Amino acid sequence: MELDAYLEHTADQVDRLIDRYFGAPVGELNRAASHLLTAGGKRLRPALLILAADAVRKGSSDDLMPAALAMELTHTFTLIHDDIMDRDSYRRGVPTVNHKWDEPTAILAGDVLNARAFSFLVGAVAPEAARIRATGMLAITCDELCLGQHLDMTFSSRNDVTDGEYLEMVEKKTGALYGASAAIGAVLAGASEPQVEVLYRFGLACGVAFQIQDDLIDLLAPPGTSGKDRGSDIREGNATLITILARDRGLDLSPFRHPLSEAEIEEVIGLVADQGIFDEVRGRAHGIVRDASALLKILPDTEERRLLLALGEYFVARGA
Amino acid sequence: MELDAYLEHTADQVDRLIDRYFGAPVGELNRAASHLLTAGGKRLRPALLILAADAVRKGSSDDLMPAALAMELTHTFTLIHDDIMDRDSYRRGVPTVNHKWDEPTAILAGDVLNARAFSFLVGAVAPEAARIRATGMLAITCDELCLGQHLDMTFSSRNDVTDGEYLEMVEKKTGALYGASAAIGAVLAGASEPQVEVLYRFGLACGVAFQIQDDLIDLLAPPGTSGKDRGSDIREGNATLITILARDRGLDLSPFRHPLSEAEIEEVIGLVADQGIFDEVRGRAHGIVRDASALLKILPDTEERRLLLALGEYFVARGA
Repeated sequence: MELDAYLEHTADQVDRLIDRYFGAPVGELNRAASHLLTAGGKRLRPALLILAADAVRKGSSDDLMPAALAMELTHTFTLIHDDIMDRDSYRRGVPTVNHKWDEPTAILAGDVLNARAFSFLVGAVAPEAARIRATGMLAITCDELCLGQHLDMTFSSRNDVTDGEYLEMVEKKTGALYGASAAIGAVLAGASEPQVEVLYRFGLACGVAFQIQDDLIDLLAPPGTSGKDRGSDIREGNATLITILARDRGLDLSPFRHPLSEAEIEEVIGLVADQGIFDEVRGRAHGIVRDASALLKILPDTEERRLLLALGEYFVARGA
Repeated sequence: MELDAYLEHTADQVDRLIDRYFGAPVGELNRAASHLLTAGGKRLRPALLILAADAVRKGSSDDLMPAALAMELTHTFTLIHDDIMDRDSYRRGVPTVNHKWDEPTAILAGDVLNARAFSFLVGAVAPEAARIRATGMLAITCDELCLGQHLDMTFSSRNDVTDGEYLEMVEKKTGALYGASAAIGAVLAGASEPQVEVLYRFGLACGVAFQIQDDLIDLLAPPGTSGKDRGSDIREGNATLITILARDRGLDLSPFRHPLSEAEIEEVIGLVADQGIFDEVRGRAHGIVRDASALLKILPDTEERRLLLALGEYFVARGA
């Protein structure tokens, strides 16, 4: 099976579960909690959980799909809360929960999904010790996601963020849940300790690469293709690997902190490209995934390990 | 041991754990998460968890103290989020997290405590099956707490809330976590299924009585003694058992929806008392606890069962 087909199959199964549990919400709070979840998404975290489980044992891991859903619920819970903090009005082409309802409802909607994630995971089809360990990993991960989001917020008032600090923030804000998805899939499938460890590190690397790629897409995606507001990181002066490296090389992007025309965005792109920054950023993302991929050689040489490696490539290749 | 001494002993132990894990927070987010937790509190939910465990087995349940702390963390998480929704500025004599920091930090601080609650509970000193069941119960309870808070919010725009609807809201918003505290203590201590069931119902009843008593205190506590803003439910037109019964008996309290003088508060108290409403409200709270207390006769006849019954009495007697 090719990666695309695998991801499509997993997403279909996750969507089916979402439809079963969140497709006909009763009451306004459940409607708010289901809103963003049912608005689509690539379901990459659930796919990574299933793929990691498949990579450490023979046979189907379809019975772990509710545990995989827990990762998507956790992700969506953080999106709902982040949208309140960022006062965002749209996401995935639909109004955010805080915009369509209000802030109090959005706080509670996120809290509801957080609770449901724990319900699904603790009820996973796996030995008791594995369920306990997986649930403990999710709890620690939720803690890290909060710390990552908080670091990200503090960065907006600083102009001296280092690339090391940036990567630490991205590891917590984005990497940790990918790492946990892979490690939890491994734990529930009965992986050995070294397998759990390398799958965590692989997932973490994928998540970090994903975020770096997102920063590239923010600036480089042709207008109207990414579904995002192009150049927003430059306009808002956000710390990203691109803007940090630009600053470190003496490139002053502060004159571009205002609504940008397409011509101005092209000008920024030219300035950044002249410094070789895009190549360096892409190189770092590739390096992070390559190093983590090398660790996967301790896994059995199977179709699923090949798909994991392909998933790593997918994370650094998308939109680039 | 008398109940007061038991509660004091448990609170001391909880405070010691809080001091160990939250007493020297590193970083601004951890400081915000620890703020309200370290500001004191009666630690009644942890006490109920320990007492329920003590009531179903011989010997000390001190090893369940981290699990008991999980109940306090869950409670504090909901307080932090509720304070954002209600735009409250002070609680327990200190500024709320949203007031001392800001809303985004308060959202994350609540989320952090929610995550830590699951960490502590899933790591409880108990057999694996019991830890799994207890963690699943906490997840369902968090879901109910959200629903209860949401119901409470929707009530503020209605003037036709029935006493049945009010009690359903209170069961979810306040009762559920007391019920879970008792039931989780029982589960972790190896209780039988009927014991878990009656302890849940007893805890739930205590929580409901606690809230009804809070409503009485809001109106009746001598000025300056409750630490709360006296008469706030009348001023804000909140649905409580008192205001619902008043409305049902044709007593119009809407002329008092404005900042109230002491004389006006006394006038309201007189009007409500004339209708026998205080007696009925107290009678209901007593009845709820009495019915649940009767169920406890299936527990062994021990000192701890006597303390549980005394705790039920304490909930309906405080401040009355």
